[in-house]
Amino acid sequence: MLFHVRMDVHLPPDLDPEVRADVVAREKAYSQQLQREGKWPHLWRVVGEYSNISVFDVESNDELHELLSGLPLFPYLTIRVTPLATHPSKVPDPPR
Amino acid sequence: MLFHVRMDVHLPPDLDPEVRADVVAREKAYSQQLQREGKWPHLWRVVGEYSNISVFDVESNDELHELLSGLPLFPYLTIRVTPLATHPSKVPDPPR
Amino acid sequence: MLFHVRMDVHLPPDLDPEVRADVVAREKAYSQQLQREGKWPHLWRVVGEYSNISVFDVESNDELHELLSGLPLFPYLTIRVTPLATHPSKVPDPPR
Amino acid sequence: MLFHVRMDVHLPPDLDPEVRADVVAREKAYSQQLQREGKWPHLWRVVGEYSNISVFDVESNDELHELLSGLPLFPYLTIRVTPLATHPSKVPDPPR
Amino acid sequence: MLFHVRMDVHLPPDLDPEVRADVVAREKAYSQQLQREGKWPHLWRVVGEYSNISVFDVESNDELHELLSGLPLFPYLTIRVTPLATHPSKVPDPPR
Amino acid sequence: MLFHVRMDVHLPPDLDPEVRADVVAREKAYSQQLQREGKWPHLWRVVGEYSNISVFDVESNDELHELLSGLPLFPYLTIRVTPLATHPSKVPDPPR
Amino acid sequence: MLFHVRMDVHLPPDLDPEVRADVVAREKAYSQQLQREGKWPHLWRVVGEYSNISVFDVESNDELHELLSGLPLFPYLTIRVTPLATHPSKVPDPPR
Amino acid sequence: MLFHVRMDVHLPPDLDPEVRADVVAREKAYSQQLQREGKWPHLWRVVGEYSNISVFDVESNDELHELLSGLPLFPYLTIRVTPLATHPSKVPDPPR
Amino acid sequence: MLFHVRMDVHLPPDLDPEVRADVVAREKAYSQQLQREGKWPHLWRVVGEYSNISVFDVESNDELHELLSGLPLFPYLTIRVTPLATHPSKVPDPPR
Amino acid sequence: MLFHVRMDVHLPPDLDPEVRADVVAREKAYSQQLQREGKWPHLWRVVGEYSNISVFDVESNDELHELLSGLPLFPYLTIRVTPLATHPSKVPDPPR
Repeated sequence: MLFHVRMDVHLPPDLDPEVRADVVAREKAYSQQLQREGKWPHLWRVVGEYSNISVFDVESNDELHELLSGLPLFPYLTIRVTPLATHPSKVPDPPR
Repeated sequence: MLFHVRMDVHLPPDLDPEVRADVVAREKAYSQQLQREGKWPHLWRVVGEYSNISVFDVESNDELHELLSGLPLFPYLTIRVTPLATHPSKVPDPPR
Repeated sequence: MLFHVRMDVHLPPDLDPEVRADVVAREKAYSQQLQREGKWPHLWRVVGEYSNISVFDVESNDELHELLSGLPLFPYLTIRVTPLATHPSKVPDPPR
Repeated sequence: MLFHVRMDVHLPPDLDPEVRADVVAREKAYSQQLQREGKWPHLWRVVGEYSNISVFDVESNDELHELLSGLPLFPYLTIRVTPLATHPSKVPDPPR
Repeated sequence: MLFHVRMDVHLPPDLDPEVRADVVAREKAYSQQLQREGKWPHLWRVVGEYSNISVFDVESNDELHELLSGLPLFPYLTIRVTPLATHPSKVPDPPR
Repeated sequence: MLFHVRMDVHLPPDLDPEVRADVVAREKAYSQQLQREGKWPHLWRVVGEYSNISVFDVESNDELHELLSGLPLFPYLTIRVTPLATHPSKVPDPPR
Repeated sequence: MLFHVRMDVHLPPDLDPEVRADVVAREKAYSQQLQREGKWPHLWRVVGEYSNISVFDVESNDELHELLSGLPLFPYLTIRVTPLATHPSKVPDPPR
Repeated sequence: MLFHVRMDVHLPPDLDPEVRADVVAREKAYSQQLQREGKWPHLWRVVGEYSNISVFDVESNDELHELLSGLPLFPYLTIRVTPLATHPSKVPDPPR
Repeated sequence: MLFHVRMDVHLPPDLDPEVRADVVAREKAYSQQLQREGKWPHLWRVVGEYSNISVFDVESNDELHELLSGLPLFPYLTIRVTPLATHPSKVPDPPR
Repeated sequence: MLFHVRMDVHLPPDLDPEVRADVVAREKAYSQQLQREGKWPHLWRVVGEYSNISVFDVESNDELHELLSGLPLFPYLTIRVTPLATHPSKVPDPPR
């Protein structure tokens, strides 16, 4: 089940550089783990902004909230979730 | 080059049913042609709305505008384009 | 899986009274059928507005979109869906 | 009498962890007390946000304000109240 | 129990003058009946707008919705309801 | 001459408790003095918010600004003023 | 007593040209009469918009509403009134 | 003197095709005349929208309003003007 | 050439009182100098807000930006500039 | 390929003056380097605001994001990117 997620990052400019480096590194590892598990199939940077547009693939709303609230950057994020459905004009992706 | 596109459809409720069926059918054919050409790799329905969230893959801004303004539903659409860049935490997709 | 749904109805004041009565009657029947099936557990009127706030209980995003886009009033509705998760402070409801 | 309430929590990321843990614990106890008394019949987490959507059941506007302004997290909350009325299409809940 | 209500009137400029005069006259009679019953204690015009700001005094949310949705102008109104509580600094009104 | 005034209070959560208690006490005294003088005939709390909706009765715009900018809480307030006029459907209040 | 007024004109593009010419001519005459009486001391066009920014000088809110609601274009206007006060840094205008 | 201008075109989908073709052709001729005179040095299409972003070079606000209100599409446009100044970091353009 | 300018002042409540008094005094002197030179012909306080609505009379956009960015309060201001043109219904001011 | 970019600068008023001078100087050098390379062909100041409106000319979305996120002021900027296409009414610029 797919969800569109936009995340805007608001790290204070005066955040301690070590704290910042640490949380950003943990965020990257966390994100890549979820990508490898197939939970986070799409991740793009919004041009010119410290933001991303993502698509998550989860079993339930509860699972999605658990994944998102576990993001190391969560206290600094504005997150907006939009549930997605199959579009009737969608041409099926070819089998891998 | 990827662009995030949200389209909200505003077909007047009192539109002639034949006109409506015709434009919707032409929209579907047009969309599926672009999907098969690889120009429109993602297309999702927004749950509860007559809207879609899409990703286009084009060579240039001009090409994207040509594709979007050629949509049979274009006069009835509100379209919002967001340019996408590679995210530094993105795990590369496996080769097909 | 629960979703919060707000629906604002925009019926044109000059709509033919018979058309209006028919669509409103079909909406009521459709809604009550879903309530009886347990798909639409909460339905409230927003005071002073021709709007409702609802909670739907469905298996998937696709099912929710199918239910909402099948509403007889759908062409006249502005719908806003918000996915809900379990709240960690929630006291479990007593068994029925 | 039912009221729809949305609460968005804005705890500063640099809040002292003990202060934070204390206020969050008191909030939980306060919330669960009201739930047990039947004043706060619905409480959901908004997926991806540090927010909840709730329904309160109170005797009066004054009682509702007293309950909300007494929330331990009140100084950190943005609260938006919407009065609810009975919907004419509502199928009565079965007796417990 | 008091509620703050703002109503913005959107009568189409090309509405039939007789229809318009009729609905406006019925609105006035309806409003004055509620004022005399003490249900609508305050009614002011917003300067420069075809809008009013009102205070209603009712027993319940359901009663308020019944009163508002019965306004002859209801199909042409945008209504926004805000529940009011007693202010702790309020000096009691002198007895009449 | 009547003006509708909405005030939203933004006291920082970490304000020194004594400073806070002092400014809130002075605000109350100031408000009650204006109420007794008949300048501030209506004062209500907005349910769930640290906000009030008020009606002021003054001789001029200059007098209103003097009263509002003299509020002890003024540096912490967002204030929105709306001028009110007599509504043509208003039933005169009975003489006191 | 001064009030800042912004008016945005929304004349439907398909309005009968004679009706349009008539209402625009009456608006001009009405405006110029008020200007000559000193009630409407400032009137500017907003560049690129069918809008004006004005300052009115009236005795009361009621007078202002009477003047504005009497505008021939009133049914086609969005009007926003802002009360003005004397600024403490204002250098007095030289006597005429 | 430069001004940034955004124009959004709102042509009704059911406009008579001949009327539409005529006004669009006159708009193009008008625009190209101003471009050749150097009054309208930049004109870009916003990707995916029936909108343009332009820069005008005029002697005065009055001249700009005269040019914009003379656009054949003016009744169908939403226009937003932003005055521009020289940026202190601007590298002078090379002489032509 | 006239420009409408709205300025909203955001001085932090905890600003050092001497710093505050100094910047406010310099702002007043700067403003009065521009008023005496005829550059700042109108200056009004917005009732209930720490804001002003002004009209500037300058030779060019560059001059206006120079004047505004030189305001001692500039780092604490939100400024919104709207270019003004002559209104076709304006009755000429009598000669002084 | 052209992109319209608006940047709003939010430097805290209490930023250390040396830090401020340093980042502003580096921003200027960075900007002028990109202008000389032809990547940043237009740069204007928005009158009255600490903001600019720019046009960038790049090969791809990725290049644009790299340029923008490399701005020394990036942590203090709100950036909004709008892709531009060729306008069908554009008169070609004369050859240099």
